[in-house]
Amino acid sequence: MSPRPKRAGYRYRVEVCFLPDQYPLYAQDMGIVVVIDILRATSAMVTAFAHGVERIIPVASVEEARAYIGRAGYIAAAERNGEIVEGFDYGNSPLAYQDASVRGSTVVMTTTNGTRTIDLAKGARKLVIGSFLNLTALSQWLAEQDDNILLLCAGWRGKFNLEDSTFAGAVMDRLLQTGKFGLEEDSSIAARYLFMAAKENFMGILKAAPRRRRIEQLKLLADAKYCLTSDVTDVIPILEDGALVPMRSATLVP
Amino acid sequence: MSPRPKRAGYRYRVEVCFLPDQYPLYAQDMGIVVVIDILRATSAMVTAFAHGVERIIPVASVEEARAYIGRAGYIAAAERNGEIVEGFDYGNSPLAYQDASVRGSTVVMTTTNGTRTIDLAKGARKLVIGSFLNLTALSQWLAEQDDNILLLCAGWRGKFNLEDSTFAGAVMDRLLQTGKFGLEEDSSIAARYLFMAAKENFMGILKAAPRRRRIEQLKLLADAKYCLTSDVTDVIPILEDGALVPMRSATLVP
Repeated sequence: MSPRPKRAGYRYRVEVCFLPDQYPLYAQDMGIVVVIDILRATSAMVTAFAHGVERIIPVASVEEARAYIGRAGYIAAAERNGEIVEGFDYGNSPLAYQDASVRGSTVVMTTTNGTRTIDLAKGARKLVIGSFLNLTALSQWLAEQDDNILLLCAGWRGKFNLEDSTFAGAVMDRLLQTGKFGLEEDSSIAARYLFMAAKENFMGILKAAPRRRRIEQLKLLADAKYCLTSDVTDVIPILEDGALVPMRSATLVP
Repeated sequence: MSPRPKRAGYRYRVEVCFLPDQYPLYAQDMGIVVVIDILRATSAMVTAFAHGVERIIPVASVEEARAYIGRAGYIAAAERNGEIVEGFDYGNSPLAYQDASVRGSTVVMTTTNGTRTIDLAKGARKLVIGSFLNLTALSQWLAEQDDNILLLCAGWRGKFNLEDSTFAGAVMDRLLQTGKFGLEEDSSIAARYLFMAAKENFMGILKAAPRRRRIEQLKLLADAKYCLTSDVTDVIPILEDGALVPMRSATLVP
């Protein structure tokens, strides 16, 4: 790392944006964007790569994904409002990708919040995918970068959500400890407070939430428990030419 | 209060909306809206009424306010980007209204965030004004209402801010303790966590913030300290026919 003049004791910023709609207000000078959709798109993406998927092409519409149903070497995945879209075998459940049969394939995926957020931020210099499943690997890689970092939460139907912002706080907490990164935004301070309140028990903060009822209604409890598990893999998905690929420097879990 | 069937152990909801732009997503079924712009519009409004102002007419444009400069019985107030607009004697500093000369007057006010937020939510059944200065009086009045309550933060230039959301958490904390109100939204849970983190020292959470630099730059430190002071008055401003007036049931500080 080249020596640079320090401003306010740190060299780069790490900030949190709570909502995709707010991205334009936070995007300036942010070279690296981490897209976060814990329940469940980015957890599913990380899981897919951990199990040998080669590429994930995020698409905006169900129709784009539908064109890939049945094509050799492709998995078509579509989720809307928490459910697999009719006609598809895959949605955004990470558990579906924990299978040897996915190895070597290309996933074409559309989800309610996650893929839209990727599309919004695709102009960033580097766009990577975050989840609790790759928390430590991602945080370590981010800490090595000489750039400002924006942690971009996908939210839920346009609203703030607790799991994305708490995860952002977890990444932020690690980056601030390096002394290399600092923060400027109130949202970043809030995310760190949320993480400090929740860190003893990620599941606890969500159990206390009425959201839990929605999770149970959708029979997603197994998914939610898995999505809130830290460090299952060290893969870091990165966007290259419109497709997510596992970063070459990462070791994949077999 | 009429007996009603309980749902999930409470009868009414209290929720927090972090940003004016998000209001449409949170407005449904919310009979009472509390507009919050701690630094400084709603703190200024509460202070003005505490010192005998009779009405405050919130207006969207500087031009509408300018028409009242020099008119007998009126005070024209305009703030943009933290500064008093040229040609006006009043902006959104609450300290300016701590003067006997304001008694009996009508204030016509436009501010960057606060009056726009009032305009957005003016269709609510009841719209009241919140600040630390009237925290207890407001919370007690809210606790007596048989309706859902939305705590609507004005934010700062379209972004989440810490002082509005922490104040919302303070009000929420009091309402939840009654057992009459419950919450459904993740933003509401987050605001309560923020309040719990900050409650020992409201100024502390803001001192830790880089925002503090902005406050100092704008020489607003005296304003900020005052705006974070709890329970200076028991006045509750309420919107009636397009103008804010002190609620009749409230006792004004002389």
